[in-house]
Amino acid sequence: MQSTDSEATSKGLTRRRAETRQRLIDAAYEVFAEDGIRDAPVELICERAGYTRGAFYSNFGSKEEIFLAMYEIQMSARATRLAEGTESALKAVSASDPERADKVVALIAAQFVEGLADDVRWYPVFAEFRAQALRRPELRAPTAAAEARFEAALAAALQTAARALDLRFAVDENYLAIVVRSMYEALLTRMLLHETPAGGAEEMARSLADLVLGVSTSQNTEADEAAAQ
Amino acid sequence: MQSTDSEATSKGLTRRRAETRQRLIDAAYEVFAEDGIRDAPVELICERAGYTRGAFYSNFGSKEEIFLAMYEIQMSARATRLAEGTESALKAVSASDPERADKVVALIAAQFVEGLADDVRWYPVFAEFRAQALRRPELRAPTAAAEARFEAALAAALQTAARALDLRFAVDENYLAIVVRSMYEALLTRMLLHETPAGGAEEMARSLADLVLGVSTSQNTEADEAAAQ
Repeated sequence: MQSTDSEATSKGLTRRRAETRQRLIDAAYEVFAEDGIRDAPVELICERAGYTRGAFYSNFGSKEEIFLAMYEIQMSARATRLAEGTESALKAVSASDPERADKVVALIAAQFVEGLADDVRWYPVFAEFRAQALRRPELRAPTAAAEARFEAALAAALQTAARALDLRFAVDENYLAIVVRSMYEALLTRMLLHETPAGGAEEMARSLADLVLGVSTSQNTEADEAAAQ
Repeated sequence: MQSTDSEATSKGLTRRRAETRQRLIDAAYEVFAEDGIRDAPVELICERAGYTRGAFYSNFGSKEEIFLAMYEIQMSARATRLAEGTESALKAVSASDPERADKVVALIAAQFVEGLADDVRWYPVFAEFRAQALRRPELRAPTAAAEARFEAALAAALQTAARALDLRFAVDENYLAIVVRSMYEALLTRMLLHETPAGGAEEMARSLADLVLGVSTSQNTEADEAAAQ
């Protein structure tokens, strides 16, 4: 039937367009990681992806626009990994383990560090973009929105862990999410500046775990203390 | 006497050279704040300072080198302000005030926010430079060294306050200094991205104070509790 053919064609076009976008994004990430965003020639991105400049500009208005699409993909992958990682860390430590909170938080922090090799490549691209966003009004709102979405996902993971562990944070989850994220960035920056990505990773995981536990109190302990009085 | 004349001439030259450097640094800061480091023409810096390109290059090898000199001046001014501010906050609140710790920490956080107008101008320049430093090996070591010096000054101020207030931090001062600094940067970034520098300032001061108090326990309270048992 005509309509079915036309639907199939339309679906095929949509799929092909999505593939084109994805291949351009993957190529742009490679080129941005090598040369930086500002120094990356659009021609090189097209060449790597196997497309013309026309294909690039029919999908993205600029290098900044392709970066923003890349940013969404990167951060939503991290958010998914974090939610799954939190769930598996909670399952991995027995509910009766007296050091459950410490162990679960350490496991989650260790996952941050597992993702580090990715982030060592990603972070300089991201840092260049954010520095540009601070200066260019048209980039501010989409950057702020993307960062807020990621921080909300991080806050949700912290809340899930806190409930399962009977922990109470001294600061609210949304704020703690900003703290954890900015600490992760600060530690990553130090590792990159000191050029010790391998040696610093475990110290980094421990520091993040210390931070979260430092602002946490166990509701069980408080209940025990209240009961003892 | 010949030697005294020559010394005077030499001192005069040194002083004149220091003035030239300072005027170039001041002009570069203005131009970097307006255009960004990469887009700042060296000619414009020279024009603003009233010197030739020759004067620029006899004092600085590159825009990055003049930025690093500027960074030292900026961060050492902040460190001095912080040390003096900590001292005056400790003097401003009576030692017998039952809420002394909260009040002193709030006063110190409020000083951070007073410096905010400066930092709204400074931070985009700094963020661009640090993004470049992540990518360019020759910039990493001097950037890491300058950041370490500032964090050491911040850790010293935290330690001074903690001793005077009988507070104990759940994490060590050097690490807490990184936390406070990265939180300040994260909050400043949010304010700039959301374009609400004025409205966000008080919330920012409160957030920083909450963070420091969140990881603190009073040694007096602990001593009281121990005595009560």
